[in-house]
Amino acid sequence: MKRKDLLGLKDISADEIMLILNLAKEMRARLDEGQHKSSELVGKSVATLFYENSTRTRISFENAAKALGASTSNISAESSSIKKGESLIDTGRTLQKLLTDIIVLRHPCSGAAHLLANNLDIPVINGGDGTNEHPTQALLDMLTIYKSLGEFKGLKVVIVGDILHSRVARSNIWGLSKLGADITLVAPCTLLPAAAGKIMDCKISHNLSEAAIGANVIISLRVQLERQKYGLFPSIGEYHKYYGVTNQILYKADSNVLCMHPGPINRGLELSGQAADGESSMILEQVTNGVAVRMAVIKLLSGGLR
Amino acid sequence: MKRKDLLGLKDISADEIMLILNLAKEMRARLDEGQHKSSELVGKSVATLFYENSTRTRISFENAAKALGASTSNISAESSSIKKGESLIDTGRTLQKLLTDIIVLRHPCSGAAHLLANNLDIPVINGGDGTNEHPTQALLDMLTIYKSLGEFKGLKVVIVGDILHSRVARSNIWGLSKLGADITLVAPCTLLPAAAGKIMDCKISHNLSEAAIGANVIISLRVQLERQKYGLFPSIGEYHKYYGVTNQILYKADSNVLCMHPGPINRGLELSGQAADGESSMILEQVTNGVAVRMAVIKLLSGGLR
Amino acid sequence: MKRKDLLGLKDISADEIMLILNLAKEMRARLDEGQHKSSELVGKSVATLFYENSTRTRISFENAAKALGASTSNISAESSSIKKGESLIDTGRTLQKLLTDIIVLRHPCSGAAHLLANNLDIPVINGGDGTNEHPTQALLDMLTIYKSLGEFKGLKVVIVGDILHSRVARSNIWGLSKLGADITLVAPCTLLPAAAGKIMDCKISHNLSEAAIGANVIISLRVQLERQKYGLFPSIGEYHKYYGVTNQILYKADSNVLCMHPGPINRGLELSGQAADGESSMILEQVTNGVAVRMAVIKLLSGGLR
Repeated sequence: MKRKDLLGLKDISADEIMLILNLAKEMRARLDEGQHKSSELVGKSVATLFYENSTRTRISFENAAKALGASTSNISAESSSIKKGESLIDTGRTLQKLLTDIIVLRHPCSGAAHLLANNLDIPVINGGDGTNEHPTQALLDMLTIYKSLGEFKGLKVVIVGDILHSRVARSNIWGLSKLGADITLVAPCTLLPAAAGKIMDCKISHNLSEAAIGANVIISLRVQLERQKYGLFPSIGEYHKYYGVTNQILYKADSNVLCMHPGPINRGLELSGQAADGESSMILEQVTNGVAVRMAVIKLLSGGLR
Repeated sequence: MKRKDLLGLKDISADEIMLILNLAKEMRARLDEGQHKSSELVGKSVATLFYENSTRTRISFENAAKALGASTSNISAESSSIKKGESLIDTGRTLQKLLTDIIVLRHPCSGAAHLLANNLDIPVINGGDGTNEHPTQALLDMLTIYKSLGEFKGLKVVIVGDILHSRVARSNIWGLSKLGADITLVAPCTLLPAAAGKIMDCKISHNLSEAAIGANVIISLRVQLERQKYGLFPSIGEYHKYYGVTNQILYKADSNVLCMHPGPINRGLELSGQAADGESSMILEQVTNGVAVRMAVIKLLSGGLR
Repeated sequence: MKRKDLLGLKDISADEIMLILNLAKEMRARLDEGQHKSSELVGKSVATLFYENSTRTRISFENAAKALGASTSNISAESSSIKKGESLIDTGRTLQKLLTDIIVLRHPCSGAAHLLANNLDIPVINGGDGTNEHPTQALLDMLTIYKSLGEFKGLKVVIVGDILHSRVARSNIWGLSKLGADITLVAPCTLLPAAAGKIMDCKISHNLSEAAIGANVIISLRVQLERQKYGLFPSIGEYHKYYGVTNQILYKADSNVLCMHPGPINRGLELSGQAADGESSMILEQVTNGVAVRMAVIKLLSGGLR
């Protein structure tokens, strides 16, 4: 890979995406064979610099780094140097001088990863920036599709839920549309960016029952209950009724439909328990694919500048 | 060991306990010889999933895992996926898919470890569930007794303090009585389960001075000051006077009495400083035995299913 | 090194300081050659016991320990056994029994590291105690000077800022004056210990513009904004005007002046952005020297008692 950083799928080519996915597929095969530890990155150090908490994403990156033999450090939002008013760039430069080889940044501001990457010599992986992108989450969704369905061209992909705040949705839209998938966004008006249908190459729907017909993939997004103080939908019951993925929805889709969710799931809200645990569910499969994708990205970028 | 999990000492046989203790004794010998790192579990990953904080227990499990060459991850109560409302089972399944080989669970609800174990393929070690059990703590107490006194049969063991809330006491009662020890529980009425003397095979006393006569082992339990808002005893001074372990109490016991406590200790409350630091005190010895016991348990269970 | 602990630079000889600095210089050369991982301390365990948070110092110690092959554990102020009222000595003894080989202690009380060291068999490194000392920070400052300027004798060193609360300043004063540097402390009266000029062998100034003339080294101290509720200076603007290090100040100094700061920096307060990022700035250089110094200290002490 020619680039220093992985900041998003908007600015990356279809070829680069396939390069990552094919290496990730190899990494996944390795994991499935029980090879959980190699020594290829011994002496390298990956820092997770998380201004927002996420146990799942942090441990996924940590386990990916460790599986390659690298060591890891975590700097979290509660930690003092962040609170002490140090600038993001100064924190990043300090980490670099503390022997960090790669930084994974999660930050509440869109664009934070770009700012950091432009000011450091070492690779920066965007682990989620504001409502912009979360590229490794989209890549793990894509690996899950690629492993199950073999290709992206012409696939009917439905993304349902809080599109407005979802960086996962944005990264998936950029990535999947580059590889030729046909994307439909399903959400209540209050959870859709005003210009969604215009800027991005997607269909828009407010009716999941209709949009699900013949779908190859349904990606349900997490409802962040903490955002509900703004009253973006009337009630949990109503949300589940109109936008929750249930067996009834899955029956309308293709018989091999993949039911996906980035986790953690709110059972009975975005998904019924039956859908979450059913045969179509790829939710747990996605988790291990996340480790494999992050191994591939760390490996590809660790050949970069120091 | 034939079982997948270690959930408590109630459902485990005397033979299984001795299997663990004998392996733990070997592990302890290894540690005493300065062998603090082996490679037998390289590539295995132990996650400590702690819904209640405990530095001591967490580090003991971590150091035990690392001493065997395994890597460790910590997920704590403050972490976001727990707060985000994910179910315990979903968190456990996710950890399993993140390449975790063994989960150590600490949870405020009695039965939580059983629930998790029944829903996962990987081994679960109960690191304390509500007021139910804390088996590795009891096993380290038992290793301490075994190493010092050589056997359990007929030993007079006094357990003094907050029996009502103590999972350590419960695990010790199950384990020690299976191996033939003669147990006396000493506590004020407000800190004893109503049915203690009936369900469990123990004597009951409210007089530590009498109960201590001839005792081979006195296990003092931690007073959790945060529980004292319920007024379970009149004052700290009064508690220490009647239920605190002091040199005067130890003089009444057997001349080789072992004075034990799970830590962290409140000096001047459960124990006088002299008792804590005296010749009978096994408190620091217990700490290293804790690492050895956890090494044994991790080693025995890591041969289990994946 | 003949001592068990590193508690401060007050009680250490000039020869011992040079022993540490020369080993640290070797460690730094190793790091610069890309050797970020050796196996010399495999099986050793370093615990960072931090009663005050400091991501930077903690990660620096952790990465130093890992670079030598040791493993690390962190126990922080929020952790439960500290909150549960355990005494510092009991916590330290427990860590020792949990197989810890070296403890790095950061504590808000001056003298805490001495108390712990006197009660444990294993080495204690003072990672900052109250307003007393922070020896490894001073040693990294000294390594930065030593590597750039080759010697200490007769060097004109200006330390500017909150001398009153700064353990870094204290350690630098002891260390640099032992090696023959000529130290001037610059601060408003409210941020200077009353007896500074009498007890310690330093000049005192309230005028940075004058003190900077011909300086070889200017060390700017962090303003801890949380201390400003006491109104120790009139305003941030005024502080920056009179005590901030700017290019104008640096022009008055020696042409090879080193501009140093322990970090994290408040840009526009202790330092202008230009001074922080300029050619004289050693701030990022100091960070890597911190890892090298800590590697040297850990290595030297790990030959100690167990």
